Amino acid sequence: MSFPLSSFSFQDFPKSALSQLDKVGLELALSEAKLGYSEGGIPIGSVILRFTEEFEQRVRASRSVEGRSEDLSLRDQDVEVLGKGHNLRLQKGSPTLHGEISALENAGRLKAAVYEKCTLYTTLSPCSMCTGATLLYKIPRVVIGENTTFMGDEELLRQRGVEVVVVDDSSCKSLMTKFIEEKPEEWNEDIGELPGTTTS
Amino acid sequence: MSFPLSSFSFQDFPKSALSQLDKVGLELALSEAKLGYSEGGIPIGSVILRFTEEFEQRVRASRSVEGRSEDLSLRDQDVEVLGKGHNLRLQKGSPTLHGEISALENAGRLKAAVYEKCTLYTTLSPCSMCTGATLLYKIPRVVIGENTTFMGDEELLRQRGVEVVVVDDSSCKSLMTKFIEEKPEEWNEDIGELPGTTTS
Ligand SMILES: [Ca+2]
Ligand SMILES: [Ca+2]
Ligand SMILES: [Zn+2]
Ligand SMILES: [Zn+2]
Repeated sequence: MSFPLSSFSFQDFPKSALSQLDKVGLELALSEAKLGYSEGGIPIGSVILRFTEEFEQRVRASRSVEGRSEDLSLRDQDVEVLGKGHNLRLQKGSPTLHGEISALENAGRLKAAVYEKCTLYTTLSPCSMCTGATLLYKIPRVVIGENTTFMGDEELLRQRGVEVVVVDDSSCKSLMTKFIEEKPEEWNEDIGELPGTTTS
Repeated sequence: MSFPLSSFSFQDFPKSALSQLDKVGLELALSEAKLGYSEGGIPIGSVILRFTEEFEQRVRASRSVEGRSEDLSLRDQDVEVLGKGHNLRLQKGSPTLHGEISALENAGRLKAAVYEKCTLYTTLSPCSMCTGATLLYKIPRVVIGENTTFMGDEELLRQRGVEVVVVDDSSCKSLMTKFIEEKPEEWNEDIGELPGTTTS
């Protein structure tokens, strides 16, 4: 039942459904960020979603019959959460479990054909590592809460053909702004920036 | 006692010492790869090394007195292993614990000032994710066992100013070649490539 996304791209889904998917995705990512904050961690959250194959089939069927599918609305059961996670640097002493990496890890082992139908939601512009992970698995869409408190490697994503949507969400921004004010040193460490003292 | 590498780069170390460091690093990375293979895993290993600050001081002192330091030889205690690891996709069901990510994770939380004096050794050309992790933490040197069985994002590393050394090591190549022949599907999954069937 699997087919390459190239034959059925995100543009073939109703705009209203894609917009609903993105709303769900960013809300889940923000919930993960808030969970991280409540644990004393860096508040960045991510989630990986896709439309279910059943919804994809409904859209396909609708298109072939009527030539359009804008009226199809997205139900809860039409969305599959493949993975979610948040930054765990402070909780686990981890330099690699950024929100996006945590979500990928939580999703477990997946074949390339699954990733190519996914959207990665993240509350903050993805750093070089998380950008690279997105490219490795050829995730075709990335929706970003905000890129004001930190600008990641978005431009590389675009250069390599990934669709990047920046929501500029005020809740994502205010949560990060609060954290950076509270723990500037931990934040600099997370993005590999000086100043800081060595741990040796 | 810390100073920015920009004022004392890898080129300031004796070539013989750097060559010894690279030999130690690649051997350790290959040991990790073999360990992974013995566990039934994808045989890619990595290690993160640096010269100790004491050795750095000896080189500095030698330079200021004699104007050269080529005669300084590297002793075992002059090398610090910050982290090592191997690919754990098959052992842990992990899509993100590539050899390089495992080594970074094993190294734990480090400040930017530490990473900037490190060399990352890896038996295989680093994929986009591991390339991105190297860029995130601004690791200035990457030594690669081979890039024949897989060509990663080396060119991006170079474009961003990372020194990349490809050793073209026959032991690294033959280990990967053997694995790819034995488990082609697991290998394709690891590098995000079709063909493969979905897991859903
Ligand atoms: Ca140390
Ligand atoms: Ca599934
Ligand atoms: Zn990241
Ligand atoms: Zn990798």
